Amino acid sequence: MRAAVLNKGEILVREDVDEPVPGLGQALVQVKACGICGSDLHFAKHGASMLALGREMAGGMMADAGARPELDLDQDVYMGHEFAAELLELGPDTESDIKPGALVTAIPVLMGMGGVEPIVYSNTTKAGYGERMLLTAPLLLEVPNGLPAEHAALTEPMAVGLHGVNKGRLQQGEGAIVLGCGPVGLACIAALKVKGIGPIVAADFSPARRALAVTMGADEAVDPREETAWAAWGRAGKGRTPVVFEAIGVPGIINDIMRSAPAGARVVVVGVCMENDTINPFFGISKELNIQFALGYDPMEFAGSLRSIAEGEIDVAPMVTAQVPLEKTPWAFEALGNPEEHCKIIVTP
Amino acid sequence: MRAAVLNKGEILVREDVDEPVPGLGQALVQVKACGICGSDLHFAKHGASMLALGREMAGGMMADAGARPELDLDQDVYMGHEFAAELLELGPDTESDIKPGALVTAIPVLMGMGGVEPIVYSNTTKAGYGERMLLTAPLLLEVPNGLPAEHAALTEPMAVGLHGVNKGRLQQGEGAIVLGCGPVGLACIAALKVKGIGPIVAADFSPARRALAVTMGADEAVDPREETAWAAWGRAGKGRTPVVFEAIGVPGIINDIMRSAPAGARVVVVGVCMENDTINPFFGISKELNIQFALGYDPMEFAGSLRSIAEGEIDVAPMVTAQVPLEKTPWAFEALGNPEEHCKIIVTP
Repeated sequence: MRAAVLNKGEILVREDVDEPVPGLGQALVQVKACGICGSDLHFAKHGASMLALGREMAGGMMADAGARPELDLDQDVYMGHEFAAELLELGPDTESDIKPGALVTAIPVLMGMGGVEPIVYSNTTKAGYGERMLLTAPLLLEVPNGLPAEHAALTEPMAVGLHGVNKGRLQQGEGAIVLGCGPVGLACIAALKVKGIGPIVAADFSPARRALAVTMGADEAVDPREETAWAAWGRAGKGRTPVVFEAIGVPGIINDIMRSAPAGARVVVVGVCMENDTINPFFGISKELNIQFALGYDPMEFAGSLRSIAEGEIDVAPMVTAQVPLEKTPWAFEALGNPEEHCKIIVTP
Repeated sequence: MRAAVLNKGEILVREDVDEPVPGLGQALVQVKACGICGSDLHFAKHGASMLALGREMAGGMMADAGARPELDLDQDVYMGHEFAAELLELGPDTESDIKPGALVTAIPVLMGMGGVEPIVYSNTTKAGYGERMLLTAPLLLEVPNGLPAEHAALTEPMAVGLHGVNKGRLQQGEGAIVLGCGPVGLACIAALKVKGIGPIVAADFSPARRALAVTMGADEAVDPREETAWAAWGRAGKGRTPVVFEAIGVPGIINDIMRSAPAGARVVVVGVCMENDTINPFFGISKELNIQFALGYDPMEFAGSLRSIAEGEIDVAPMVTAQVPLEKTPWAFEALGNPEEHCKIIVTP
């Protein structure tokens, strides 16, 4: 079968990838749509340092943002964890209420006799940038309401935003600042809006992303070169303390927030900065800030995200800026470097 | 009157300090005991950079750890915010249920016609390293149960520990790791013990401080050169996720915790690091850590701390390693540099 793979930092399209064969408790699916995640772009460029970080860290879960340290970057790496697919067949002695032909999605985790493996970066486990892949049968969710595959594929990134918002423990009456309006920031905005949180002040340098932020539910979106999010909050926040979502993930931004945030603010870090970063703890101490790092989502949040999209609470259509066939995956990885042009590109193998 | 002051980085004893005169709503007190706080040692050495940090930061409360940016370090600076004192007289038109002659303590904040000023570092407001000072009459707490002044003076540092523990939102059934067994770490241990939290695993390089940690309520205290707190927790924690108290306050320690803490851990930063510090956010992200910075306490926590000490829930006597007259304040500042010799030195003006 065909699949786009990462090999020595390059995205290549292979024509002769082994067909995956479902085992006990597994399902074979035909991928209909798979979104490209910012973490895939990052891994393509910085995979080696991400693996080194993973080795350095004790007790971590590698899950979505990381990868297994034993991964070989000089061999083909299968990627693609934001997928919607058609159920083809179940493995031996495996049952499901979902029938072949149904459109499904699932949290990207493959369980098998050998254990549990995240479907994220692997030399062996096929993933969403390919024609077919394996999923865990008991984890399959049928896509309801005739939701098209290219929108169902956003279940995963939108779940990341929902999880970040849940980690922020927001109460009714609280408002939020979202710094960075890439897919993760937009997912946070959408989840905040569903939760009834307001105002939501977003900030991004890109006019296109600011427009998307408002479309997804931000009450206003500022250009930090013209007005900081803090100043905008001063106008819009009515004296309240915001919950701040860091969805940028570059060195320096956490300390900028710590320096500028009002006393008592809670900060949820959903951006993924994988480089060393400098902070001044005194900023945090003197203002008693709380910094909650967030990653991934749980199965309930994933299911809730699908429900919100399928029931029209969240319209993800504006986030999808292109759909491309498998052979254009290398182009899509390049194109996502320009925030003015693209937000979420969907590969349709 | 006499007072020990900070002048150009040195502690000097002055004989001819102006007598403070109580205004409306204020009380004149005779200081009986005043503990030396680690933040005073730090301010004596690094006052200029602390003031610069305060100027850099927007929205911060300077409170206990900081000072007013307009402070002049080339003039005498009055310090001493861990005090117990005898009430001498009330200001004009000022009433109190507490009678002159009573032993009192109070949160170190002086309210007056000119506003509210922390009693921490000031060129004008007298503080605890002097014979007499002013307090805010409505904030006075009478020291109950015949508790001696040198123990009542520990109300303030023990309140810092209680506040840190409250910020940690610990529930029954949770346990804690306390890294660093100086006065703040010990105060956390005592507050955790009162709250019924256990096990409490403490860590410090100093044998004397490890012994104090156990005296104050730690279930065990490890020497990190022999066994890390994480390894000790692995033995003692019964598979639970600890709440980690960072009570060291030096660069590097927050990242060490982020690297080594188990997934899902909550970290309460009660140590005060005032230098730039390097972290790798990826450690926090991949383990979804929560970092709560804590500073100071509220009036209820201060009163609760006094009650715990006066009712014998917390025995602070082992923490007091010396009592010295005012003229030995310069010596005491030096002596506190050695953790084997001293924990809390009380000045008795």
